[in-house]
Amino acid sequence: MFKTLAFSALPAALLAAFSPAHADEGQWQPHQLPQLKAELKRIGIAIPAEKLADLSKHPMSAIVSTDGCSASFVSPDGLVVTNHHCAYGAIQRNSTPEHNYIANGFLAKTRDAELPGGPNLQVYITDKVENVSARVLQGLDKLGGKARHEEAQKRIKALVAECETDKMYRCSVPSFHRGAEYYRIRQMQIRDVRLVYAPSDKIGNYGGDIDNYEWPRHTGDYSFLRAYVGKDGRPADPSPDNVPYKSKDFLVVSAEGLKNGDPILLAGYPGRTSRYKLPVEIRNARDSAYPLQAAEYQSDLDTIAAATKGDEAGVVRYASVVKSINNRMKKTLGLLDGFARKDLAAVKDGQDAEFRAWYAKQPGVSSAMLSELDAAIAADMALSDEEFAWNVATNSDLLKSARTLHRLALEKQKPDAERKAGYQQRDVSPIKARLSRLEQSFTLKVDQARYTDGLARYAKLAAKSHPQGLDALLPAVADVPALYAQSKLGATAERLALMDKDAAAIAASDDAFLKLAVKLHAVGLSLEERRMEVDGNLERVVPQYMAAVIAWKKSQGKPVYPDANSTLRVTYGTVSAYSPKDGLTKGPFTTVEGIVEKHTGKDPFIAPDNLIEAVKAKRYGQFKDPVLGTVPVNFLSSADTTGGNSGSAVMNKRGELIGLNFDSTYESITKDWYFDTAITRAIHLDIRYMLWVMKEVDHADNLLKEMTIKYPKK
Amino acid sequence: MFKTLAFSALPAALLAAFSPAHADEGQWQPHQLPQLKAELKRIGIAIPAEKLADLSKHPMSAIVSTDGCSASFVSPDGLVVTNHHCAYGAIQRNSTPEHNYIANGFLAKTRDAELPGGPNLQVYITDKVENVSARVLQGLDKLGGKARHEEAQKRIKALVAECETDKMYRCSVPSFHRGAEYYRIRQMQIRDVRLVYAPSDKIGNYGGDIDNYEWPRHTGDYSFLRAYVGKDGRPADPSPDNVPYKSKDFLVVSAEGLKNGDPILLAGYPGRTSRYKLPVEIRNARDSAYPLQAAEYQSDLDTIAAATKGDEAGVVRYASVVKSINNRMKKTLGLLDGFARKDLAAVKDGQDAEFRAWYAKQPGVSSAMLSELDAAIAADMALSDEEFAWNVATNSDLLKSARTLHRLALEKQKPDAERKAGYQQRDVSPIKARLSRLEQSFTLKVDQARYTDGLARYAKLAAKSHPQGLDALLPAVADVPALYAQSKLGATAERLALMDKDAAAIAASDDAFLKLAVKLHAVGLSLEERRMEVDGNLERVVPQYMAAVIAWKKSQGKPVYPDANSTLRVTYGTVSAYSPKDGLTKGPFTTVEGIVEKHTGKDPFIAPDNLIEAVKAKRYGQFKDPVLGTVPVNFLSSADTTGGNSGSAVMNKRGELIGLNFDSTYESITKDWYFDTAITRAIHLDIRYMLWVMKEVDHADNLLKEMTIKYPKK
Repeated sequence: MFKTLAFSALPAALLAAFSPAHADEGQWQPHQLPQLKAELKRIGIAIPAEKLADLSKHPMSAIVSTDGCSASFVSPDGLVVTNHHCAYGAIQRNSTPEHNYIANGFLAKTRDAELPGGPNLQVYITDKVENVSARVLQGLDKLGGKARHEEAQKRIKALVAECETDKMYRCSVPSFHRGAEYYRIRQMQIRDVRLVYAPSDKIGNYGGDIDNYEWPRHTGDYSFLRAYVGKDGRPADPSPDNVPYKSKDFLVVSAEGLKNGDPILLAGYPGRTSRYKLPVEIRNARDSAYPLQAAEYQSDLDTIAAATKGDEAGVVRYASVVKSINNRMKKTLGLLDGFARKDLAAVKDGQDAEFRAWYAKQPGVSSAMLSELDAAIAADMALSDEEFAWNVATNSDLLKSARTLHRLALEKQKPDAERKAGYQQRDVSPIKARLSRLEQSFTLKVDQARYTDGLARYAKLAAKSHPQGLDALLPAVADVPALYAQSKLGATAERLALMDKDAAAIAASDDAFLKLAVKLHAVGLSLEERRMEVDGNLERVVPQYMAAVIAWKKSQGKPVYPDANSTLRVTYGTVSAYSPKDGLTKGPFTTVEGIVEKHTGKDPFIAPDNLIEAVKAKRYGQFKDPVLGTVPVNFLSSADTTGGNSGSAVMNKRGELIGLNFDSTYESITKDWYFDTAITRAIHLDIRYMLWVMKEVDHADNLLKEMTIKYPKK
Repeated sequence: MFKTLAFSALPAALLAAFSPAHADEGQWQPHQLPQLKAELKRIGIAIPAEKLADLSKHPMSAIVSTDGCSASFVSPDGLVVTNHHCAYGAIQRNSTPEHNYIANGFLAKTRDAELPGGPNLQVYITDKVENVSARVLQGLDKLGGKARHEEAQKRIKALVAECETDKMYRCSVPSFHRGAEYYRIRQMQIRDVRLVYAPSDKIGNYGGDIDNYEWPRHTGDYSFLRAYVGKDGRPADPSPDNVPYKSKDFLVVSAEGLKNGDPILLAGYPGRTSRYKLPVEIRNARDSAYPLQAAEYQSDLDTIAAATKGDEAGVVRYASVVKSINNRMKKTLGLLDGFARKDLAAVKDGQDAEFRAWYAKQPGVSSAMLSELDAAIAADMALSDEEFAWNVATNSDLLKSARTLHRLALEKQKPDAERKAGYQQRDVSPIKARLSRLEQSFTLKVDQARYTDGLARYAKLAAKSHPQGLDALLPAVADVPALYAQSKLGATAERLALMDKDAAAIAASDDAFLKLAVKLHAVGLSLEERRMEVDGNLERVVPQYMAAVIAWKKSQGKPVYPDANSTLRVTYGTVSAYSPKDGLTKGPFTTVEGIVEKHTGKDPFIAPDNLIEAVKAKRYGQFKDPVLGTVPVNFLSSADTTGGNSGSAVMNKRGELIGLNFDSTYESITKDWYFDTAITRAIHLDIRYMLWVMKEVDHADNLLKEMTIKYPKK
């Protein structure tokens, strides 16, 4: 696939200076919260900041992640609530034409009936976060480029290995502030996760792609999973003998609701933000990288559509791929729209100038650091263009599988600690899962079309973005059919069997895609090494820069939050509407009446009959909001979120679960680059809607009973 | 043209019962206001209801009308403010390629520079309203059908003639509650009206047809006229010797503004509503009449577009015709959308049943009245279908001119009092004006195309809607070119000269359209006579029905307002937003920043450079709203308005001018049939925007000085 985050290698900490930490901006590391005491008090959070900072205490000890999403425990028996779209893979893999759980929903009335979530569904509980900056950085200042990057990676691997001696944990040492700090994060990894309950996609995905990123919104984007462990209480491979995990902590669910202006807390695992970009990077994204990327998404979608036309099975196979590309494309287009709406580069220009003016006045500094920074960023942008072109030229799942198998065989020749991250012993099981589940979203015909068209598009990209030596190695478009005819990698068993082969066996194989992978290896490796060089240089200059930035903010009495990096963060905000344009106000609530209003009977606006009937009969039960006079469905808050925050617990001032985060509005897509307080809004599911559907529509009484629910006083 | 109001002949008073007079519904006759004392007080109107009811007292004596629009005096020297679109004809007729007042605006810095408004621009001041019901209705109960209608018309003519002995007045005797009451209305008619100031259409028509009926709205829909009279102070034909009319009263303009929830009063001349329709009529409109009408508008627009393609002069000639058809079509489509959104027929079913149940319980009533009512309505709907078909079959301006000339000659043979209304001596001057100004919006080529296509469409209409005998008389499509070749009516001088010919001369003419007019006369007359028969029957049964309705409402303590009929009315409401759909709020204000936001540089979103500059520089002056922090442009209120209310004075609780009505929102188009308090909103120009443009953009200091303006306290 494409490199989703075109600039993932960019200085994360840059321009921290330029996003002043006021209003509701900030994806805070829990340990930073005590610095924000006054802010939390001002908006009305009742939980002491010190308690919120402690991962071993309620409510943070109830917050977990699943792969790519956030979630939380809602019972002492390992019951987990997250988004419908986060459990979509698990729902899909259990669905058959006879039991279509996507269309009809699924509810296990007993634990026996709970269904396996599959190898890709795991639950992670962060239980320890240590600042290991000193162990990673000590003495590194002397090094630059690739040497620096490799030495840092070596130390990180050692830190991870030391932490993973107990197999129940998975550890990582991500950088914060783009290399200024490193934290070792230990997570308990639960590998047996089962599907407990998901509403019909007529509820869980109501509005579908049309409503994605939109408001007014009426999506019941929730589902329930359960974590299972061995009888000894420790994580175990999936087995019928496993038992529900006894979660140490869980969130109380509050049906008391919120009203406009009320404070909220949101905890989860935001994926990636780029708040600290330099003006030159915004201009590059706006004028070049994003337009190219959007066009690439559209072309790939067109190819898939053409190749699956009239082939219903093919359409189903690629449904989630298409959904994912569509989602990324809409986000890219949203960014471009946002850049067109507000000249963020100009805003950053002003902030950059302000910082540089302050910096110049500090005693004993020279402008060399800033020059080095600018040079490192220019090198990064140029390399990113090549990486983009490489991705276009390798747009084939078979080629990607072949490259993974070849690389795994090569890395296995080294001692585990020296292998490339992602190919160590600890990674073998996830690689297997990935190679295995490819069969669910792949057909030879479509993959061949995507590769053919990708090669044609690559040929049209600017020559200077073509990685050196690559053009000569790529097959001609006319030769692609032969490649597919001469490869067995389309068969899952074949892919899995090859995982055990050594490098020599792979090199000797006559499988056309393995041969191609071997041929392309040197170019790929060269890109990787240049990336390490570029990153190493960034990693050297950025911590110096960051020190200046943090000092500058400190001089103004403001803490600095690091860009999102898929680690646990806390954000806060208030329930609030916004004005997308003059004379118009959106939110903060939608109601069940709006579902009926949108219902056209045509996908994706088909509400279930019994839901419509309950709304028309005004059977609101205990979930009626006193202000709205009906059941709320979704609401907006000013909390600072991004992708990865899907499924995040939205809590009231007492830490009770009152919503699930699942999206943000179209106008706030640019928040990944710049948090605009006036228009940035996250979209949450109101937990009262979930409870109402469980009660009135799906009759999930067993789960309502299992959770601890606080009902409003009568 | 088409019959804009398909059911203008329907029982206006019907179903008064079914629109309960609460909330802000009601277009009240001024004399009714004392009945609403408590309501006016509740929303905060400070002017005593008795004073508001008196047309000789401030502020009502400052309220006037121009042809088809409402307006008001704003200085003691006859200065009138109304909408830009109401003065559009006057702006257009004074524009030349060298002096394009449409594009560039027009400002007379001195009175000498004020421009003639043309024969179609008059100012009417209502100064006397008498209840003449007894004189119209006495003894009529014995008659029905055409006989009744003709007798009533005869009495009305006599009442008009008696009133118009003084030539400075124009009198009319419209029916209220569809014939239950008649009032004689005396208006001073000022025939010399000049254009004083109009902003560029980049302000006055900002948003153009795209924003028509839409919100958010940013239209500076205002312009200034001046009433001129002879040196004796009496209305006079246009002459350079005339002097500004010394208006007895005028409105003070308040720049103090309003905020959300503030009360407003609105006075003007609403054209036509149909609030009292029976369920069967709504169903007929929804399922048959409106869809047909919308299709007819679209076909006619297509014909005009095709016939003017590549002909810039033709496009300009038909610009106002196209605008007018577009406007009516959007309204019709809005009605159909509204009917689809809310089942008004079902709402009316419930109300109708409620009334009939009450009626059945009254002592001494029989069901005969209701049966007679239902029969009269059925006859009316059937005849309306034929009238629609007739209009489609005569869609030619030359044919219409010919029929007018022929009819005028016929009527002139009778004593003035016996002539058909519209062809009496008093009507000769308006007919002349109409025949004369046709040249501004007509070309032979386009008219021929419209007639040709109209005939083709007529042929496809249901056979039962074809008026008896008509088909045989209509020309074949192939013969249309010959008709146009053999007519001189395209020449203005020819049309005007024919006004003096007698019936014999017209009958003997060899002008092809005069010959056709003579041939079609009998069918047209038959439709007219049947209309009189149908109306006479309605006029007989409706007053009985209305008595029941008024009694029913009285039993509930509620006054009943009559449907709009282009007479002076007062409505009230509050500044308020609305929700067009769940999760979305529109209004109540837009601001000058929204103009810049909408500005694309492409018509109709081209804001003048100096306006944009003033906004960007935040040069708000004294017109900054304290809540919004900027200058408001348009706002919404819950007042009850309709077409004809364009230009109506919007006043604050003290009767000071704070806005001009100019449109209503798309969702409230159905208000002509049913006032839905939740979504019905009128769109007003905030007078602060007008004053701000006059001050900062157009520098109309002479007019700012002439008006009495109340500025906010600092």
